[in-house]
Amino acid sequence: MPRELNVALIGYKFMGKAHSHAYRDVDFFFPSDCRPVMKVICGRNQAPLQDAADAWGWQEYETSWEKVVERDDIDIVDIASPQNTHRDIAVAAAKAGKHILLEKPMAMNEAEAREMLAAAREANVKHMVVFNYRRVPAVAYARRLIDEGKIGRIFHFRACYLQDWIVDEQFPLIWKLRKETAGSGAHGDLNAHLIDLARFLVGELTEVVGQTHNFVTERPLPVETGELSTMLTAAGGAETGQVTVEDTASFLARFDNGAVGTFEATRFAPGRRNHNRFEIYGSKGSLVFDFERMNELEYYSADDEAGSQGFRTILTTDEAHPYVSAWWPPGHAIGYEHTFVHQVADLLQAIHEDTEPHPNFHDGWKNQQALDAVLRSAESGARVTISH
Amino acid sequence: MPRELNVALIGYKFMGKAHSHAYRDVDFFFPSDCRPVMKVICGRNQAPLQDAADAWGWQEYETSWEKVVERDDIDIVDIASPQNTHRDIAVAAAKAGKHILLEKPMAMNEAEAREMLAAAREANVKHMVVFNYRRVPAVAYARRLIDEGKIGRIFHFRACYLQDWIVDEQFPLIWKLRKETAGSGAHGDLNAHLIDLARFLVGELTEVVGQTHNFVTERPLPVETGELSTMLTAAGGAETGQVTVEDTASFLARFDNGAVGTFEATRFAPGRRNHNRFEIYGSKGSLVFDFERMNELEYYSADDEAGSQGFRTILTTDEAHPYVSAWWPPGHAIGYEHTFVHQVADLLQAIHEDTEPHPNFHDGWKNQQALDAVLRSAESGARVTISH
Amino acid sequence: MPRELNVALIGYKFMGKAHSHAYRDVDFFFPSDCRPVMKVICGRNQAPLQDAADAWGWQEYETSWEKVVERDDIDIVDIASPQNTHRDIAVAAAKAGKHILLEKPMAMNEAEAREMLAAAREANVKHMVVFNYRRVPAVAYARRLIDEGKIGRIFHFRACYLQDWIVDEQFPLIWKLRKETAGSGAHGDLNAHLIDLARFLVGELTEVVGQTHNFVTERPLPVETGELSTMLTAAGGAETGQVTVEDTASFLARFDNGAVGTFEATRFAPGRRNHNRFEIYGSKGSLVFDFERMNELEYYSADDEAGSQGFRTILTTDEAHPYVSAWWPPGHAIGYEHTFVHQVADLLQAIHEDTEPHPNFHDGWKNQQALDAVLRSAESGARVTISH
Amino acid sequence: MPRELNVALIGYKFMGKAHSHAYRDVDFFFPSDCRPVMKVICGRNQAPLQDAADAWGWQEYETSWEKVVERDDIDIVDIASPQNTHRDIAVAAAKAGKHILLEKPMAMNEAEAREMLAAAREANVKHMVVFNYRRVPAVAYARRLIDEGKIGRIFHFRACYLQDWIVDEQFPLIWKLRKETAGSGAHGDLNAHLIDLARFLVGELTEVVGQTHNFVTERPLPVETGELSTMLTAAGGAETGQVTVEDTASFLARFDNGAVGTFEATRFAPGRRNHNRFEIYGSKGSLVFDFERMNELEYYSADDEAGSQGFRTILTTDEAHPYVSAWWPPGHAIGYEHTFVHQVADLLQAIHEDTEPHPNFHDGWKNQQALDAVLRSAESGARVTISH
Repeated sequence: MPRELNVALIGYKFMGKAHSHAYRDVDFFFPSDCRPVMKVICGRNQAPLQDAADAWGWQEYETSWEKVVERDDIDIVDIASPQNTHRDIAVAAAKAGKHILLEKPMAMNEAEAREMLAAAREANVKHMVVFNYRRVPAVAYARRLIDEGKIGRIFHFRACYLQDWIVDEQFPLIWKLRKETAGSGAHGDLNAHLIDLARFLVGELTEVVGQTHNFVTERPLPVETGELSTMLTAAGGAETGQVTVEDTASFLARFDNGAVGTFEATRFAPGRRNHNRFEIYGSKGSLVFDFERMNELEYYSADDEAGSQGFRTILTTDEAHPYVSAWWPPGHAIGYEHTFVHQVADLLQAIHEDTEPHPNFHDGWKNQQALDAVLRSAESGARVTISH
Repeated sequence: MPRELNVALIGYKFMGKAHSHAYRDVDFFFPSDCRPVMKVICGRNQAPLQDAADAWGWQEYETSWEKVVERDDIDIVDIASPQNTHRDIAVAAAKAGKHILLEKPMAMNEAEAREMLAAAREANVKHMVVFNYRRVPAVAYARRLIDEGKIGRIFHFRACYLQDWIVDEQFPLIWKLRKETAGSGAHGDLNAHLIDLARFLVGELTEVVGQTHNFVTERPLPVETGELSTMLTAAGGAETGQVTVEDTASFLARFDNGAVGTFEATRFAPGRRNHNRFEIYGSKGSLVFDFERMNELEYYSADDEAGSQGFRTILTTDEAHPYVSAWWPPGHAIGYEHTFVHQVADLLQAIHEDTEPHPNFHDGWKNQQALDAVLRSAESGARVTISH
Repeated sequence: MPRELNVALIGYKFMGKAHSHAYRDVDFFFPSDCRPVMKVICGRNQAPLQDAADAWGWQEYETSWEKVVERDDIDIVDIASPQNTHRDIAVAAAKAGKHILLEKPMAMNEAEAREMLAAAREANVKHMVVFNYRRVPAVAYARRLIDEGKIGRIFHFRACYLQDWIVDEQFPLIWKLRKETAGSGAHGDLNAHLIDLARFLVGELTEVVGQTHNFVTERPLPVETGELSTMLTAAGGAETGQVTVEDTASFLARFDNGAVGTFEATRFAPGRRNHNRFEIYGSKGSLVFDFERMNELEYYSADDEAGSQGFRTILTTDEAHPYVSAWWPPGHAIGYEHTFVHQVADLLQAIHEDTEPHPNFHDGWKNQQALDAVLRSAESGARVTISH
Repeated sequence: MPRELNVALIGYKFMGKAHSHAYRDVDFFFPSDCRPVMKVICGRNQAPLQDAADAWGWQEYETSWEKVVERDDIDIVDIASPQNTHRDIAVAAAKAGKHILLEKPMAMNEAEAREMLAAAREANVKHMVVFNYRRVPAVAYARRLIDEGKIGRIFHFRACYLQDWIVDEQFPLIWKLRKETAGSGAHGDLNAHLIDLARFLVGELTEVVGQTHNFVTERPLPVETGELSTMLTAAGGAETGQVTVEDTASFLARFDNGAVGTFEATRFAPGRRNHNRFEIYGSKGSLVFDFERMNELEYYSADDEAGSQGFRTILTTDEAHPYVSAWWPPGHAIGYEHTFVHQVADLLQAIHEDTEPHPNFHDGWKNQQALDAVLRSAESGARVTISH
């Protein structure tokens, strides 16, 4: 009999759904000695919460996260609520000895992140941040090629994360567009992912210089709708309010290994639904990834014969690619939610084998450190060094 | 309380896994008034069958399909076993009054298919064939554009289904390479899908002329391995046998609406893992789909302004695209298994609302008719007319 | 001092322009011991002919090809007039001892082509047919990879040549749409190119089975316009006439080396301006070329490491690629007219070194043989063997 | 009779060849009332200069640019020599009343550029800088779409110019890698083009913050080889020297119209032979261009119907596209050198009609201003404002 681990999930919107499905699917594709039990889902509003519990298969629901975190029968606390709640829940969960899976970005700022890391370390629990793109097979395989020396010395990391869902000036001022709930805008939401990929694939950032901008500064206040509605269908009313987070943030960076990087995040790129893309150029080869074609990795090998050199479009669905053999035969794509399944599978394994999973709160803290440095630079107009 | 429908699944390999997952996932993403219950999985060999039942969540397992089909508590019989078993199981299931979900190709030949269709109609049960590519959102959306007149009069349907898994001459003579178990080779396996897409998107085929070929005529006999191993890792021994199905089959066709078509299937196209691709050219626009980029549809509108005409790469993950809003926000890909979830969702709905689902046994029979006609033409070297 | 070779060009429309430019440009990029002199351009109508001579730099013009062919000072006769004139001019030119550059397709039928070949051989002159796509660097490089064994045993040749310039039913009945002037339609115009590429890259065709179709059978007769107007801007009047050549032609083929092929040509593919594309699949690798991206070749090597396999997009502008180093540094594209420059450069070299250039009248004849066989098959509905 | 304009070309290497060919070809494709006469080519070393004159068709050659600039029979001075010679030649040419075509980047620094602009204005001659990418049909068409309001308010300009020709540490220290001859490295060579495209398509830059880096700081000194050898085949000896220009330069920018931009140039991107790419995102649509596919423009229209939105790949070879109808029918690509033909055609027209061509010395000066500002910022680590 596999060991059962009871999960409490805080949050029941987009990420709540993605995480719920991961718990439900993981054992089908990644059978192991550990099996998650979908014990309780937690949120503020009872009606939609109850719906979510029914729809997704949670045994119970609960409106107080404080109670949930304290329950003896909970092994894993999964935090998928807005950023401004992360610190309190994570610290409490750690103190209660729970393993923690935490949505990104980690916190409202670096100080919070550091506190959370300290709490988790002190409690000696497993901790993981859901930078889920690490577990796209193409990205995990990119890391493997780098580790094997196929890319050589890395010169450039070029990344962008472009979306287009708030181009309409009438799109309402939802919580993601307010500093008090979201901490930051495109920067914390999207550059956080790019920074994680940069740290995963290249190294630590040592210096940044950045720029932020708002294209639309005032928006209609959102009209209260049913809670399970998605962000994209939110509607606005007649009253307006100030947008208090940046619409776009870009920055230049240096890495500890001598590479340089460019990063850009925006929600104002019409035609780019979820364009999370990076390019890596090294002395022996190059890599390109674009999440909109998540089952592909482009790879250029400078070792290929003269005349036959070119970027290879690798369909990352072969047996040789990470995670993939658990799913389907070559040429059969996987999708977005699979990255969460992979992360949950790895978390369960880490708990079972008592190893350190990644990305963890240390990664989350370093990420937050870089995020904060960029915002300071954008404000001052000058380079900011990141200490280590 | 949703109505519960008990499912019996016959077959526990690649398709068994895909179907099992669909039953497990469907209610999470497509909640409805009907809920499938994974009652019993059925196969010949007890040990792997038991493993499959455990792994995928079936309540029971059973080695006799005859018994399963007769059980009073079964509502749906899902047939995912090799082609040479389809007729007997389907006819028995129909006679027992079960709704039927059947893997493609429908049968060993047109006569069998006709018999199955007659049985299902007589029993007045719901019947569906798993030509799952109809339910890729991009394909379903292509159909919608055609229905809306956006493509105009269709001139050309150009399709190919290219794979590369048996290029190695040492790849063993598994059941898919033997006429007695598989009926035919690349033709029945792959052209069957293309024919279904052609019928779904263009119309009925009226005339075909074809050509088949074998590049490797003798292969090592397979060594018995554990039953849950995938096709692709099969190993061969020292003894060899004759390949009795075609490696490739191509044909030219005419449609009842005046369009012409080209079709080609092969398992000898290195680099093409699962390249199910079609192009449609019509008087008002054109469409291109490639399953290796299943979240995209290329669309050319002849109505676009001069100078700004070009194939649009549509990321078919918007709210406007069929099935997709049940999953994730725009820009978040879905994968192969989702097509099965869609098909099961539609089957449940058809049962619940007592409507005719598609593709059904009529579609399967017309498909088989075309498949057979091509093989006859390839043998005789002359055009074959398909009667209606 | 380089040797000067006097050229007489018959024809002054699209191909006349392309050939003229090639003579003018060749020495700049491919300096050699031979230099073409643009002596005389020849056509039926004096006014536009005189304009063409002025615009393109011909020293003289002449309305009688018979006179031109007989002139003692002419070394090369370049035939770029409609197909129905090819035989007479070529035979006369050969008898007069002139080297011949001839536009494709070679003739109105195989008998004519055989006669032309005999005449050229008897006269012992150099003869070349302008299947210019052989000299796209990407195509010439594809041939090199095949010759080096990089593709291994070839299984499949899949080719199509798709255009869209006559989709409009009001497009007039120009000479290219009439059998008496053009011989055939999309087939002779476009499949002729594909057959040449097939013979260049794969081998001789031994058997074909084909299908042709007309989507529009009647069109307005063209209104007389200035002679230098291009095909695409032709206008039609109130009177109509019968289209006497096929709009589309497709066929299946077998090659002498065991490969199989599919070919398709059409002028009814909206969005495809000049989509001359082929795919080659072999035991060791695969190749894809599309003239709409003529500076690229896709190459898949089955020898690449597991996990890192994928089609490479080779930008064929490196020093290693045929013809290219004469032009610009890597990454700087060349265009359509360059293929004619390459062909003229090779013709001059063949004349100077007294070697046999390719593709020559033998190639043109084999090409015409295959073209004719397909049309016979399309009529009879049965396979046609091509003798050798 | 067309008016003849005598040209003197200073420089006989890569750009000398490109410009020479443009003069030779322009009248064939763009016949007008002005015809350039290739009068004299000028350089320092007589032997290779004489070869170049012969090969490219210049009537004379001359080793003193001072003499050439003073000649009464010269109408146009074309300056294609290294940057450190631009100022002196241009000022002298202007004073001598010659029209000037000048290679980019304009000068060694902004002060020189301003001096040149003043001289040209004072002399009332035509002046043009060869930012040739403006005249790629796709780019000229992008500008047209912007002018027509199809892109709406521009939010983002994202550009990079990536090459890979000096990744090898043994590549020698040629003049382009030395500050005294080249002024700067990847920045002046490549970002100059991006800045010109930004100014052409978006607007004036008002603020920049940049970063530069060297990956290889010391290289072998070049061995003297024949002068007509290309950069890429240069060889190095045993002695080494310091690289004094940057290998890569990136910067963030703000535009006067509220758009923001990112720019990156490098010569250390393996696999990118000449990857000059930009993306523009606006309220109504988006555009993507990549010079490695110079015959294409990607265009996203936010006005397209929901569900059918996607980037269109426009093959910019239709009649509707700038410059293209002078060449070949739709679907027939043009190449790199065609951009120079277009620029010369426009220069001749501007001279003939006495209009102001673009980009001119004012554009060159604004370009140099931005280039200098970025380098100052990279040094100081702080934002630099660009005055207007």
